[in-house]
Amino acid sequence: MPRPRSTVPSSSPSPSGAAAAPLGPVHPGPGAKAALAPAAVEVRGGFWDTRREVNARTSIPQGPGLLESAGNLHNLRLAAGTAEGEFRGAYPFVDTDVYKWLEAAAWQLGQEDDEALAADVDRIVALVAGAQQPDGYLNTWFQLTKGGERYKDLRWGHELYCAGHLIQAAVAHHRATGRTELLDVARKFADHIDTVFGAPGSGKPIDGIDGHPEVETALVELYRETGERRYLDLAGYFVDRFGHGLLGGEAYCQDRVPLREADNVEGHAVRQLYLLAAATDLATETGDDELRSAAERLWTAMTTTKTHVTGGLGAHHDKEDFGDPFELPNERAYCETCAAIASIQWSWRMALLTGEARYSDLIERTLYNGFLAGVSLDGERWLYVNPLQVRDGHTDTGGDQSARRTRWFRCACCPPNVMRLLASLEHYLASTDGGGLQIHQYVTGRYFADGISVRAETEYPWQGAIALTVEETPADRPWTLSLRIPQWCRDFRVRCGEDTYDSAADDGWLRLERTWAPGDRIVLDLDLEPRLTAADPRVDAVRGCVTIERGPLVHCLEQVDHPDGGLDDIVIDTTRPLAVKHRPDLLGGVTTVVAAGRRRRVPDSGWWPYRNAAAADAPLSADLLELTAIPYYAWANRQDGSMRVWLPTS
Amino acid sequence: MPRPRSTVPSSSPSPSGAAAAPLGPVHPGPGAKAALAPAAVEVRGGFWDTRREVNARTSIPQGPGLLESAGNLHNLRLAAGTAEGEFRGAYPFVDTDVYKWLEAAAWQLGQEDDEALAADVDRIVALVAGAQQPDGYLNTWFQLTKGGERYKDLRWGHELYCAGHLIQAAVAHHRATGRTELLDVARKFADHIDTVFGAPGSGKPIDGIDGHPEVETALVELYRETGERRYLDLAGYFVDRFGHGLLGGEAYCQDRVPLREADNVEGHAVRQLYLLAAATDLATETGDDELRSAAERLWTAMTTTKTHVTGGLGAHHDKEDFGDPFELPNERAYCETCAAIASIQWSWRMALLTGEARYSDLIERTLYNGFLAGVSLDGERWLYVNPLQVRDGHTDTGGDQSARRTRWFRCACCPPNVMRLLASLEHYLASTDGGGLQIHQYVTGRYFADGISVRAETEYPWQGAIALTVEETPADRPWTLSLRIPQWCRDFRVRCGEDTYDSAADDGWLRLERTWAPGDRIVLDLDLEPRLTAADPRVDAVRGCVTIERGPLVHCLEQVDHPDGGLDDIVIDTTRPLAVKHRPDLLGGVTTVVAAGRRRRVPDSGWWPYRNAAAADAPLSADLLELTAIPYYAWANRQDGSMRVWLPTS
Repeated sequence: MPRPRSTVPSSSPSPSGAAAAPLGPVHPGPGAKAALAPAAVEVRGGFWDTRREVNARTSIPQGPGLLESAGNLHNLRLAAGTAEGEFRGAYPFVDTDVYKWLEAAAWQLGQEDDEALAADVDRIVALVAGAQQPDGYLNTWFQLTKGGERYKDLRWGHELYCAGHLIQAAVAHHRATGRTELLDVARKFADHIDTVFGAPGSGKPIDGIDGHPEVETALVELYRETGERRYLDLAGYFVDRFGHGLLGGEAYCQDRVPLREADNVEGHAVRQLYLLAAATDLATETGDDELRSAAERLWTAMTTTKTHVTGGLGAHHDKEDFGDPFELPNERAYCETCAAIASIQWSWRMALLTGEARYSDLIERTLYNGFLAGVSLDGERWLYVNPLQVRDGHTDTGGDQSARRTRWFRCACCPPNVMRLLASLEHYLASTDGGGLQIHQYVTGRYFADGISVRAETEYPWQGAIALTVEETPADRPWTLSLRIPQWCRDFRVRCGEDTYDSAADDGWLRLERTWAPGDRIVLDLDLEPRLTAADPRVDAVRGCVTIERGPLVHCLEQVDHPDGGLDDIVIDTTRPLAVKHRPDLLGGVTTVVAAGRRRRVPDSGWWPYRNAAAADAPLSADLLELTAIPYYAWANRQDGSMRVWLPTS
Repeated sequence: MPRPRSTVPSSSPSPSGAAAAPLGPVHPGPGAKAALAPAAVEVRGGFWDTRREVNARTSIPQGPGLLESAGNLHNLRLAAGTAEGEFRGAYPFVDTDVYKWLEAAAWQLGQEDDEALAADVDRIVALVAGAQQPDGYLNTWFQLTKGGERYKDLRWGHELYCAGHLIQAAVAHHRATGRTELLDVARKFADHIDTVFGAPGSGKPIDGIDGHPEVETALVELYRETGERRYLDLAGYFVDRFGHGLLGGEAYCQDRVPLREADNVEGHAVRQLYLLAAATDLATETGDDELRSAAERLWTAMTTTKTHVTGGLGAHHDKEDFGDPFELPNERAYCETCAAIASIQWSWRMALLTGEARYSDLIERTLYNGFLAGVSLDGERWLYVNPLQVRDGHTDTGGDQSARRTRWFRCACCPPNVMRLLASLEHYLASTDGGGLQIHQYVTGRYFADGISVRAETEYPWQGAIALTVEETPADRPWTLSLRIPQWCRDFRVRCGEDTYDSAADDGWLRLERTWAPGDRIVLDLDLEPRLTAADPRVDAVRGCVTIERGPLVHCLEQVDHPDGGLDDIVIDTTRPLAVKHRPDLLGGVTTVVAAGRRRRVPDSGWWPYRNAAAADAPLSADLLELTAIPYYAWANRQDGSMRVWLPTS
């Protein structure tokens, strides 16, 4: 049986006074300019523990078998010369499926001893090491199908992208387990890259960037892990070479305009977001204010004009890219699961850099909606794209972009990406600024920082009460407990001893400064009344519609709950109250919102569906219809059928 | 100077009594089951003559130069062994650009003698003939890049698709000019195909179909032109083998379900429409009622659920395919120009087969909107996709799918397709059923059938009056002049001698049976009051919006006419009257519709564009704004900028 480990290094159940840096995926260096540092959290019980248990017991353990049957491990053996056959897989980046799985497994091993998993990791790390070429280069696609040709197709070759995920896996493996085997491989590759790529005049043979950013943020982490400044400099060089036409100037590859000059996010969503994560890392490490201000500007432009209500990002199937401002379709929302993950990773870096709560507002929204929808409740099936509507009579064309959950993808980027985020989730929940603890997300467990530990107990997101107990505290030193009051929350109350608070600072934080004593108790009550939400009128796709939200959860209707007809002719009656119904039996236990609606009786239009605008609207059914709205993250777990997040109003 | 020729064979300015079959692209055989036969039309003056003049003087003459610079002609020379070098072009179907241009040029030569054009045609026909292999096979891509490998990639190889366009060009060349050089090439290829493809048990080596239907309708035409029944049988075999998994069962390739069982159009739009044109041809020639009824069912399903208001078809950029029912996006409307052409070709076959007016209703809508937008007013630039909205702040990613007109495409299917339709347009305008003349489209010129000639004079679509004069008629035999009353028309009046009519039969035809005398005059007045049109409420993309129509024309707003701001925040005030303003100076002369609107003052939302639905709507500007709506077909001829067909109401 796996045995839990503390996530808090040198921190027994009774941490000593020193700040305990968590072993997470974002670990700013000692000279970092960030306002906040990550704090440690142990997730124990509650909503996310359940999702993480599924990740730990089902998704991650199934990874090696899936990587074997999809050919990824076979390719590594071929490259190592220990097997014979043909390269398998359709893309030059199939190695990253292995690396992302390794990263997930490493974070998991940081939380508990698990001999079987550790053995799998050792075995696969050895395969990776075996496939590496003597000078450090590693990409099985190029080694096996291109006769070892390198860096000739930077636009699509993904060689540095693959290096980036290898580095991230290696950093995770080292941070979480102290092991160096994979880190050695990663450093050797990074050192090789550093001999090849550089600015004109640097003496390096190639002035170039990869068509898919990823190595940049990985190199910053490698710098943080090793202290080697070269890696940070290389990351900075790469970030600043985007937007200058080295890849032909395509927006898709982030090459149309330099980040420092851009006024909105554009192109391939995941590429854009990984690049912005790297830019934020650089601003954090170097204090580059121009880069920081570009990141702030682009984050606000993105959330204001290009973000679906689920936090999902990416409006186009074609090219997987951002659309124009306010172009946020429902059926064809792309909202790639990887883009949700990248958004969380970037926003967390922004939260640490700036100390502002809104970044964690977006993280919360994305975690509970656009991200979590990407994995089935049983942890075995996945969505690559996350539409906000599936129509009656939908013809699914299958493939990776199917609206039906799939066991594994031809381009299997999303599943191991979900695994690594869930396995490292505790690192995105709290921070410290030296003066106390900031709680960004309300998750049952224990939060640690600077000799402080706070226990949180909550049934959130089903219930709005979060009970916080100070378990350990310096005896005579005041510190501040900061609570993020979610952006969606109209009404809340905090009780702390004799005091009550019902308003936060403008920046979204409620700050409680005290000299605390063990046993002090704080109760935060967030009002979870269900809400009807509308969009900016420029979002044409949802004109005349509302969506149902409750707490951080966006809801949707599913066909299976409305068996008397389809969903395309349903309208919601917004004058009727919304009811809340917890259904422990349903979808692993969810709280549903029940609304009243009617059906629009669309008359037969003959053969032409457009009509005189002055003609009367199609009449509504007299009978009220009970609309059952489930949390969006839980959709597509029962049967195929239509679904919609946005509901026309009558 | 080119010299006009009559389009009416063996029909002098004074046709003899015998039915004069027009030399058009759809020419049912003597045993055909069609209710109607195409009638001849000479287009002289008026709206379409202008468009056809541009086609004849600019687009078609520029074809050879563009085909030369894009490499298409070079490839033919390579295949013939008369040049050296590499194959040029990105697709296995680049030969069809040549064939479609030849077809366009052939129809053009059928209308006028033009020595320069005839010389170009002769030269290019000789190139095609020279590239053909001894056994009849012809595809430069496979001959030059695949070592002559054949029929190994039916899903994507387009070999039969190319054969189909070759055959159509050859039929056109023969019908329009009587020349046989290209017909000989086409027959040789068709004969070769007939030795290769056939049902199991037929003794033919391959039981297969092409991933892009096209050869099927071409083979029916080849049968019609040559009388060789084998070609019809081969077409029938191909049509019925779709939907049985020979291509892996993909909807994209029309292989998911047999046409006879399908309940809606699906997959790649042009593939679906060409296949349906062939099915209709087969039903016409063989009386196959099951196929006819499938075509009728699918046409109605398509128009009712999957057709944009412009007649445009295809909802997805990804895979260029139909979306789900009522999935009709604006910004990402695909509406490929080729799909509009295919729709017209199919609907005309349906019109002839069934005699029903609605098919020509859709043709009219498509001609004036979704089709005509595909070519610039100067005939030199093209749109491959035809969106219904371009947003403020649109980032155009360029390429074939750009929302900006392009000189030529990497996949240059649309431009020569437009050329061939415009060059043969007169064949889609009228029909005869032996008992008279049916006028499907109101175009200035002369209409001929069965010893009848009728002259039409009209400023349509700018004015609603159409004056028809009987010029020739059998002296003592009554016949019926049938006028299509457009589906969009609320109000009309026909004056014929002393009689007045203001209602049509339920099937859309107004039938005037008389014993006519030369000089008899009929005046049809169609009410062109501009209209505000709304969509079926299930078309989510345009909820709360109207579009402005006038006659057959759909209108749009363009940024350039509204210089004080963008178009994303405009709303139309539907309580104010619409004004009509003819602008001879504008866009070659268009009638605009002027409406009143306001701007929505969207308050700063902070960083999140979703809000409490109960909050007040963003206020409207107090000042009225003059909205100038131009015909959609004329958009994108002045400057880049936003555009929208559907306007939110206040």
